Order: sequence, then C-alpha cells, then structure tokens
Amino acid sequence: MTELVIIICGLLSIAYGAWAIQSVMAADAGNARMQEIAGAIQEGARAYLNRQYTTIAAVGAAVFVLAWVLLSGPAAFGFLIGAVLSGAAGYIGMMVSVRANVRTAQAASQSLAAGLEIAFRSGAVTGMLVAGLALLGVAVYYTILTSGLGHAPSDRVVIDSLVALGFGASLISIFARLGGGIFTKGADVGGDLVGKVEAGIPEDDPRNPATIADNVGDNVGDCAGMAADLFETYAVTVVATMVLASIFFTGEVAIELMLLPMVIGAACVVTSIIGTFFVKLGTNNSIMGALYRGFVATALLSAVALFLIAFFWLGFDSTYTTTDGTTFTARHLFYCGLVGLIVTGLIIWVTEYYTGTSFRPVRSIAQASVTGHGTNVIQGLAVSLEATALPALIIIAGILVTHALAGLFGIAIAVTTMLALAGMVVALDAFGPVTDNAGGIAEMANLPEEVRSTTDALDAVGNTTKAVTKGYAIGSAGLGALVLFAAYMEDLRYFSLNAAEGSIFKGIDVDTLFTLSNPYVVSGLLFGGLLPYLFGGISMTAVGRAAGAVVEEVRRQFKEKPGIMAGTERPDYGRAVDMLTKAAIREMIVPSLLPVLSPIVVFGVVWLVATPSDAFAALGAMLLGVIVTGLFVAISMTAGGGAWDNAKKSFEDGFIDKDGVTHHKGSDAHKASVTGDTVGDPYKDTAGPAVNPMIKITNIVALLLLAVMAH
Amino acid sequence: MTELVIIICGLLSIAYGAWAIQSVMAADAGNARMQEIAGAIQEGARAYLNRQYTTIAAVGAAVFVLAWVLLSGPAAFGFLIGAVLSGAAGYIGMMVSVRANVRTAQAASQSLAAGLEIAFRSGAVTGMLVAGLALLGVAVYYTILTSGLGHAPSDRVVIDSLVALGFGASLISIFARLGGGIFTKGADVGGDLVGKVEAGIPEDDPRNPATIADNVGDNVGDCAGMAADLFETYAVTVVATMVLASIFFTGEVAIELMLLPMVIGAACVVTSIIGTFFVKLGTNNSIMGALYRGFVATALLSAVALFLIAFFWLGFDSTYTTTDGTTFTARHLFYCGLVGLIVTGLIIWVTEYYTGTSFRPVRSIAQASVTGHGTNVIQGLAVSLEATALPALIIIAGILVTHALAGLFGIAIAVTTMLALAGMVVALDAFGPVTDNAGGIAEMANLPEEVRSTTDALDAVGNTTKAVTKGYAIGSAGLGALVLFAAYMEDLRYFSLNAAEGSIFKGIDVDTLFTLSNPYVVSGLLFGGLLPYLFGGISMTAVGRAAGAVVEEVRRQFKEKPGIMAGTERPDYGRAVDMLTKAAIREMIVPSLLPVLSPIVVFGVVWLVATPSDAFAALGAMLLGVIVTGLFVAISMTAGGGAWDNAKKSFEDGFIDKDGVTHHKGSDAHKASVTGDTVGDPYKDTAGPAVNPMIKITNIVALLLLAVMAH
Repeated sequence: MTELVIIICGLLSIAYGAWAIQSVMAADAGNARMQEIAGAIQEGARAYLNRQYTTIAAVGAAVFVLAWVLLSGPAAFGFLIGAVLSGAAGYIGMMVSVRANVRTAQAASQSLAAGLEIAFRSGAVTGMLVAGLALLGVAVYYTILTSGLGHAPSDRVVIDSLVALGFGASLISIFARLGGGIFTKGADVGGDLVGKVEAGIPEDDPRNPATIADNVGDNVGDCAGMAADLFETYAVTVVATMVLASIFFTGEVAIELMLLPMVIGAACVVTSIIGTFFVKLGTNNSIMGALYRGFVATALLSAVALFLIAFFWLGFDSTYTTTDGTTFTARHLFYCGLVGLIVTGLIIWVTEYYTGTSFRPVRSIAQASVTGHGTNVIQGLAVSLEATALPALIIIAGILVTHALAGLFGIAIAVTTMLALAGMVVALDAFGPVTDNAGGIAEMANLPEEVRSTTDALDAVGNTTKAVTKGYAIGSAGLGALVLFAAYMEDLRYFSLNAAEGSIFKGIDVDTLFTLSNPYVVSGLLFGGLLPYLFGGISMTAVGRAAGAVVEEVRRQFKEKPGIMAGTERPDYGRAVDMLTKAAIREMIVPSLLPVLSPIVVFGVVWLVATPSDAFAALGAMLLGVIVTGLFVAISMTAGGGAWDNAKKSFEDGFIDKDGVTHHKGSDAHKASVTGDTVGDPYKDTAGPAVNPMIKITNIVALLLLAVMAH
Repeated sequence: MTELVIIICGLLSIAYGAWAIQSVMAADAGNARMQEIAGAIQEGARAYLNRQYTTIAAVGAAVFVLAWVLLSGPAAFGFLIGAVLSGAAGYIGMMVSVRANVRTAQAASQSLAAGLEIAFRSGAVTGMLVAGLALLGVAVYYTILTSGLGHAPSDRVVIDSLVALGFGASLISIFARLGGGIFTKGADVGGDLVGKVEAGIPEDDPRNPATIADNVGDNVGDCAGMAADLFETYAVTVVATMVLASIFFTGEVAIELMLLPMVIGAACVVTSIIGTFFVKLGTNNSIMGALYRGFVATALLSAVALFLIAFFWLGFDSTYTTTDGTTFTARHLFYCGLVGLIVTGLIIWVTEYYTGTSFRPVRSIAQASVTGHGTNVIQGLAVSLEATALPALIIIAGILVTHALAGLFGIAIAVTTMLALAGMVVALDAFGPVTDNAGGIAEMANLPEEVRSTTDALDAVGNTTKAVTKGYAIGSAGLGALVLFAAYMEDLRYFSLNAAEGSIFKGIDVDTLFTLSNPYVVSGLLFGGLLPYLFGGISMTAVGRAAGAVVEEVRRQFKEKPGIMAGTERPDYGRAVDMLTKAAIREMIVPSLLPVLSPIVVFGVVWLVATPSDAFAALGAMLLGVIVTGLFVAISMTAGGGAWDNAKKSFEDGFIDKDGVTHHKGSDAHKASVTGDTVGDPYKDTAGPAVNPMIKITNIVALLLLAVMAH
C-alpha cells in the first residue's frame, strides 16, 4: 500500500514532466535563423550524448555481466535500472533544454516574465525527472523484489540489488560529469581564448567556429551532467539509508523504516511540483526572488509534509531501538529531517555569500584584478581555500546534532531529506544552461539589443543558481558519502557478526579495526586523500588539452577561410563539436575508472600482503580519506570558480574600486578578471563537480565488494 | 658517556659554523656601492627579525608562564630553550647570509667556483646551526634533567620538558615561516607588479623602491624561515621518537633507545660536515652536480654511520620487544634508517621531476603559456594537484615497510634518520637566498654583465635547491607529524592504563576510541581537514594585501619623486621595508594562533558537550585530519609554485613550443608565464611552507594537552 502511494507520487513527477514538455514545445520557436542555430546545438548535443552513452554502455555491459556472475541476476538488473534511468533523466532533460533555449530567446523578446516561465519550466522537467525517476527506480524495483519475487525486505538479495542500482547511477554519473565537463569547458576556455582574446570578437559571435560547441557544452555539461550527478546522490542516499534501516532494525520496524526514505522522497516530489508554481515574477521584477520563492515554498511545504509523515504515518511517539542500542522516537526523526532542510538552506546561503557579486569575497577578487592577472588569481585561490570552512562547519554541526537525536540513522534521514529537495534544486540549476543558450541564440541570430538584455538578466541569475546548486550538490554528496560509509561499516559489522567458520569476515572486529596504530589505516587515509587530488589534476589537464585543441582548430579555420571574420564565409561549427566530442570521450575514461578500481586494488593488494582484517581497515580508511580531501577539493573548486566568474561580471556594469575609480569592460582590470574566470571554468565545471560522484563511487564500490565477498 | 659524545658532535657543528663564518667574512666585500646596498639589506633584515622576535617574545612570555603554571618549571625552561635556539639558528643564519651575499657577488666577478664556495659555505652555516643547535638543545637539556637533576629518563618531567622544548621550536617556526613568507612574497609580488609590469623596469632595478625589501625578504623568508621550520621538524621528531621509546620500552633498553635518535643525529652532523667539503665545482662546471655530490656523500656516509651504530653500539642482533609485543632487532632498525635515506632521495627526485625545466610538468606549463594567462594557470594548478600523488605513495610505502620492520618505533627511526640529514639539506637551501641577493646586488651596483651571468647561473640552481628542499621539508613534516600523532596515541594509552580513580583518563580505551561510528571522530577529521585550507586562504589573502600595499607605496613614490625613474632621485627603500615589516607582523598573528588554539578549543568544546573519551577521540581525529589535508595542500602548493617559477624561467633562454616556434623573454607567452609565477609565489613561499609547522604544532599542542591533563 505504502509502496503504491510512493510509486504514484513518482509517476506524478513524470506526468508533470510530460505536461511541462508539452507546454514548452507549444511555445513559439522563433524565426528560421534562430531555429537553424538551435538545430545545430540540438544536433551537436544529441551526437555527443549518443557517443557518450555508447561508450558508457560498453563499460556498463561488462559491469552487468560481472554483477551477474559475482552477485546475482537481480543485482545485475538493479545495476541496469540505475544506469538506464540516470541516463534517461539526463538525456530527456537535455533534449528539452535544447528545445527550450530558442523558445526562451523568442519569449524574451516579448517579456522577461515569459522568458523566465519557459526557461524555468524546462529546468523543472529535468528536476522532476531526476527526483521522480530516482524514486521510481528504487521504489518499483524494491516492490518487484519484495512483493513480486517474494524476498524479505532485508534479504541480502534485496539490499545487494539496491546497492547495485546505486552503483549503476554512480557509474553513469561520473562519466557524464567528467565527459560533459571536459566538453563544455574545453569549448568555453578554447573559444574564449581564441575568440575574445585573439580575434577580439564577443562571446557567442557567430563568426567564432567554437560558438555552437560552447552552447552544446552548456547542455551536455551543466544540464545532463548535473542531472546525472544529483540522480546518483539521490539514489545512493536513499539506498544507503535503506541498507542502514535493514541492519539497524528487525521485523516490521525494519520494513517501515526501510520505506521511510522513499516516503520522504515521495512527499517532497509533490511539494517540489507545487513549489514550481510559486515561481512567478513579482512586481519588483526580481528573477532571483521568483526562483527563491519557489524554493522556499517547497522547503516549507516539505517541513509540513515531514511533520505529517512523522505524526500520522509513524506516530509521533513511536519508539525505535537499533540493534546497537540507540533509542529514539519518530519525533526525533522529524527533527533530523528539519536539520536536513536547515543544512540545505545554510549551505545555499554560504555559497551565495562566497559567489555573489555584492559580498566581500567576490569584491576582493574584483579589487585584486586592479593590480593585475597575478593578484586576481592569488585572491581567487585565497577565496577558494577559505570558502571550505563554513560549509565544513555546517556539515559537522549537522552530523553532531542529528547523531545526538537519532544516531547514525538520524544522520541518514537528514541527508535523505536534504536530497529529497533535489527536484526543486535541479530545476533551478537546469534553468541556467537554457538561459545561457537563449542569450547565445539571441546574439547569433542578431535579435534586437533589448532581447539580449533580457536574456542577459536571466543568464546572470542562472550563474548564481548554478553556483548555489553546486554548493548543494557537493554538500549533499559529502553527507551522502558519509551515509554510504556508515553503511559500509555497519555492513561489515553485520557480516562479521554473522560470519560462518572459514569466511573472510570471521574474526573481524569492527570496533577495533580502525585502531590508528595500524599502519594500513593511516596509509589508507593517505591513499584515499590523494585520489581527489590526482583525479582533479588529470581532469584539469584534460580540459587544458581539449581547449588547446579548440584553439588550434579555430585558428586553422580562420586561416583557411579568411571570409569568416568578414562574415562572408560560414565557419564549420560541426568540426569543433566533433573534435571536442572525441576529446571528451577519450579523456573521461581513465580518471573515471580511477575511483572505480581504487577500492578493489587497495583491498586486493593489502589482502595479499597482510590480513583480510587489514584489507578491510585499509579500504575503510581509504573511503574516509576520499571523503575528507574530496569534500575540501570540491568545495574550494566550485566556490572559487563561481567567485572568479562573478568577479568578472562585476566589471560588466563597471566596478568601482576602493579608491573610487570605475573600471569598465575592456579595462586592464577587466582583462585580469577574465583570466581568473578562465581558470575558474574547469575548477567549477569540470574537476570540482566531478569529485562529487568520485567520492560516492569509491564508497559504493566498497559496499559492493563486501557483497561480493559475502556471496 | 654517550650523552657526552652526542654533545661533542653537536659542538662540532658550532665549531664548523664559527670557522665558516670567519672564512666568509674574510672574503672581499666589494666596492663601496655594493657595501652600501648590502648594508641596506642587512639593516632591513635585522630590523624585521628584531621586530618579529619581539612580537613572538610577547606571546612566548605568556606561554612560558602558562607552561610553568600548568606543567612545571623544567617544562617552562624546555619551552624557552626550544624557542631561543630555534630563533638563534634563524637569526645567525640570516646575519651570515646578508654578509655573504655581497661577498658572493664580489667573488663571482672572479670565478664561478669562488662564488659557489662563498654562497654554499654561508648556507652551510645555517644548515649546521639548525642541525647542531637542535641536537644540542635536546641532548644538553636531556642530560641536565637526567644526570643533573637526577630524574629517571622516562620520568614524565623529562618527557614533558622535551615536548615543551619541541613546542617552543614549533611556536617560533610558525611565526617565522608565516611572517617571513608574507614579507618576502608581499615584496616580491608587489615589486614585480609595479616594477616589471607597470614601470617596465627589470627585476632588482635600483629605481624600484621595493627592491631592497625584495632582497630583505629572501633572507627573512627563505633563510630564517626555512631554518626555523627544519629546526622545529628536527627537534620535534627527535623528541617524539624519544617519547615513543620511553613508552614502548623499560629499564636500560628504554634509556638506550631514547638515546638512539640523538646518536643518529650526532653521527649525521659529522657526516654532513664532511659532506660540505665534497661540494667543489668539477671540470664540467655543473653547480647542481657539485651540490648533489655533497648531498650524496653525506647520505652514503650516513648509511655507513647507521650501520656502525647498529653494529657496534646497539649490537646487530640485539632483540627489542615493545610493551605492546612487537619484536625486532637492531638490524631492523638499521634497515629503517636506510628506508629514511631512500625516502629522502626519492622525494628529492620526484620534486625535481615536478619542478625541473627539462621534464614534462614544467614543459606542459610553459606550453600552456602559449595560449595565454588562463591556460598557464590552469595547467599549473593541474600540475600542483597531480604532484601530490607520488610523494604520498612514497610516504605510504615508507610507513608500511618500516612498520613491518619494527612497528611504530621503526617509522620513528626512519623519520629521525631522514631529518638527521637536515644540516646538509638546509645548507643547499640557504645557498639560494644568498645567490639571489648576490644577483640583486650585482644588478643594483651596475657590475659588469658577466658577473650577473655568473650570479644568474648560481641563482638558477638556487631555485631548484629551494624547490627540492621544500619537498623534503613537507615530506619530513608529514612523517614527523605522524610520529607525533603516534606519540599522542601511545601517550594517551599510557595515561589511561596508569590512570588513578577519578582521573580524566580513567576508562579511556584507545583501541576502540576511534570507532568511526562515533560522530566526534568523523567531525574531528573534517574539522582538522578544514584547518590547512582556512590557514592557506588567510595567508594567501595576507600576501595579496601586503603586495597591494607595496604597489601603492611604490606608485606614490614614483609620483612624488619623478626623478626616480630618470635616475636623478633616490627612492626611499626604507619605507617599503618598514611598511612590509608592519604588515607581515600584523598579518602573521591570527593564522599562527589558529593551529595553536584549535586543539584546545576542540578538546574543550567536546568535553563540555560530551564525554572526555569523545574529546580525546575528536582531538585525535582532528590531528589526523590536519595531517591528511595538510600534506596534500602543502605538497601541491610548493610543487605547483616551483613548477610555475621554472616554467617562467624556460622563456629566459627562449622556449621552443610543440610547433617549433621559439618564444623569447617579453613575448606574450612569457608574460603569461609571469602571471603563473606570481600566483606560485605565495603558494610556494608563504602558504605552502607555513602548512608544515601548522601540521606539527597542532600535534604537539595535543601532546602538551595530555601532559597538562595528567598533571
């Protein structure tokens, strides 16, 4: 019964998506030139995603077979479901985005409100599909496994299959984040360098052969990439919470609390859908205000929904005792959910402080630009380092408070609630690439100046929401990874307590496993710590290389077709797209496999040279090492990149420095700020966000490893 | 008897220093103009260090009183000895450097060999004083406490006093590193921005009012700062190893193994002194070759010395069993020492790979400069991230191998041996600022072009040795911190096993303390992890601010004294020095106190809201968090900065890019590389190196906290 309600809520999101798609498609798609440009972007985006998913499918097929052989058929199908749905959410979202962009440009020629409506509705399609499909995937497969195939809910087959589902989502996510990130920033950095800097033409100028690729990149990176990322965090958090429930509780209580994360998810899908209707431009014409109104409405309604769930479904004073003796009531779980909402709000607020144009950090970077490129970058790096402190403190506070309320399960419920808002948050984010594209199309199609100012206004807000979403994504990824890590620990404890004679788990004592006098623990921590650094280094290099290739391609076209700059010859947009596609696909493979293979290698090597107990200890420490440095690397990169971006934007309306001098676009200070922005691009859109899935994928691979060992 | 030999070896280093100082001072100090310039540098450096030490003295006096009240008189005096000797090593080294610079410039006008001899001998003074004074401080105070005051060697008074000695060194070190780093890079970045970029005059041009400050900075940052840093690592590592010996062993064996780190240090002081005489320019005129010959000679002689110590002093097959049951022989300790030497060699080799002009990383940054400022910085960041992987793997391998050989004590002996080479390594490093200054003096005094080329050749090598020393400093700091951390754990175990009823240590179980299901452990790790980031952010901001102030001061002077640029008016060098002195002192306070106070605050807060056991767990996890992220932050910053620096240097002789085009000094690509160098400056000379002492200071404060709790 509860399962049915959850599935109906999930289907609601699909229905909302179908309605929103149809409503976006019904809008005017503009003139022939606009449609031609949009067509080129569509074609490029589709070609890229097809190639990307074909490549992932090859890896996925191998993993499918492995999962079947090493675990079970249901696990293999779980993996398949997670992978396919994650891909579908990104793919459909991207297909809508590349159709909404031109319609947003057209609508912007009528009014700001009309432009906002189409752009946001298109973003909401992606958002609702992310939350809805993730929820449906978990809920439907859980129902099939339990009610359909008759497994007990806490049967290992069910747990393993759900973990495999999470892994499917993770695998798609890391490829999509990284491949999309390399594509989009290769195009952006390369196009800017050769266009803005060398040829002196503005962004999105149709004479730049990389301009279509840049717009394609917005869709495959910011839209499809972010969708896959949050789909994954959502799915793995719900799954990890269910795993914890299955271990911590027994009997009917276990079933009830395994359903709880899905119930919260289902309720928040509904509150998110309702929230989208609150996004309406007010009389003050504040776009950000309109978007935040939608978010706040969703958060408040979600708080009410949480209360109702705790009060009516669980019973406010129902008492739960975990197998390790922690006792709490449904009331405490409600408070944990509230903490999840508060953490979400605080992280959004801090991220906006560090990346918004009107606050100290961004202003300090703009000020530092006045003394040159070097000081701009120094200050940007300083901000990026500093920006990690408050989010880390918020996360620490969240952990301590929810643990005090309801132990590890309390942390899990808080993170689940945080993720349950993903539909709304992704909607805000996916709004960004649509408006970015709309501006590009307006520029390329030579639409009147006022259309461009409207799309610029939308785009500026899109930049903020993109930055804010990244803060949310990494914060939730860090907390989600901690829940996964807790699941690893508890799973290990479960296996060791129930180990048969001769089993690898026999004699493992989880409580003393992590004694820090064991050198494998310290080594594991350090090894885990190096992974985000190495991964970040490789992905930054990949962007640099892809951008360099774009620069050379564009230079070649300018040289071979001198008519391009005069406007008499058309650049060959397709070549740049094609080249970047190949580069991105090629470059994404090795770094993506790093977090997938590392847990297996660490476990295998330590097992060989030492004991199984050391191997489990090293692996666990490695997971924690990845989380600790990964969290800081990702926050510093995404916050720093966002701050650099907005420091550059400060100059577009004239930046007044501390001596009262105004620096305009084109000034030396502005040029210095462009350097910072270029540096920030791969920081915030490639390396930083790709660290999110890498943190989780190491943890989920470790969980699967336990399952394989136990099999 | 053994103590006497150790003290005699320590005194040898003082004797060497006295001889070397006298030999440097006997050299020709050049013409009147040169002496005038050198005088200004001397005056500035002395003024800065006096002010810095006065400020530290105020903090130190408070700590002295606290140590006396909270611990004991001997502990307070230990603190004083550590602080004073650390300060003395840096101060004397700096005083020699600022006299050797002008003599090196003069000698360089005769021959490369003569210039090398003076510069290296001056560096060797600092090097030998660092190793010698650190050894003497520990050995003499240990002898006074045991033979003099009659305490048993493993008495807590002895241990606490030695830990307090380490803390004294640490406190000086963090202030010196940070204050010196802010001064030197504020001058460097600010001077370059306004001189090279705005006014278009070369580095070290006497018309630049910041040029004397820049040269002062080399001495107070690279020379005195590095000296304080390695003095501290040396002292705390020896002390931590002694603490471990006192806990792990009993009776005569404990006394013998407490002496072992000092015996190794004593032997290596002698081998380092012998090594300095191997530094002679060969027929191939390779400066680097000459320096490396000295280092290799020292390393090989040290290996022989280790063998002799193990064979004759300990007895090769003497068997030791720790209180926790690990058994090993002196032969194993010998192998651990060898591993320490090998780790040192490997880290130097990897650092040179990542920062040397002829290898892939630096060449990739130079290549990226061709496409602009942005790609230069992106590639530099990519290299800085990637450069952490190999050193981390080397450290992991070192930990695992030495632990397998002789447990935690084996790790400690390996690190002690690594640090025992500090005299030679600091000699190589302190050579750098002398040659840098010599070049500056040659430029300012208008010496003939060929003198400048000789000093440039010396300076180029100085850049490499500075980069390499930083790799060594952070590698040894990371390992030293792990030994300190082990000392914290074992100390805690010792106190809890011997706890009286009602003691705070009663009932603490170290083996289960770090169970990762305790939220305070995860929170502690995250909190520790954020410290190096926050610290790095604050110190980068401080450099940016100081550099901005220099820019404004220089602009003001150019405006008020138009004759400066024409060469008819003299700039007011003193003002820039004075301003930077104030800025550096002001900016160093808050970040320096961050790692000192954090352990106390974390412990206190957790104790208040939870249990003592949670407080010890949170504190321990915090220490490990600082080590894990600190290691990566410091390595990435120092390696990245070094790589940027040398990528810029690649252009000075013309960089041939992958298309065969040569880019010279003054080209756009060169300008882009200057941006990277500017960014790398505070990375490699302020924030990165200052993370070394901060990693250790948190650990040593935690050790002291245990002592205070037990008191």
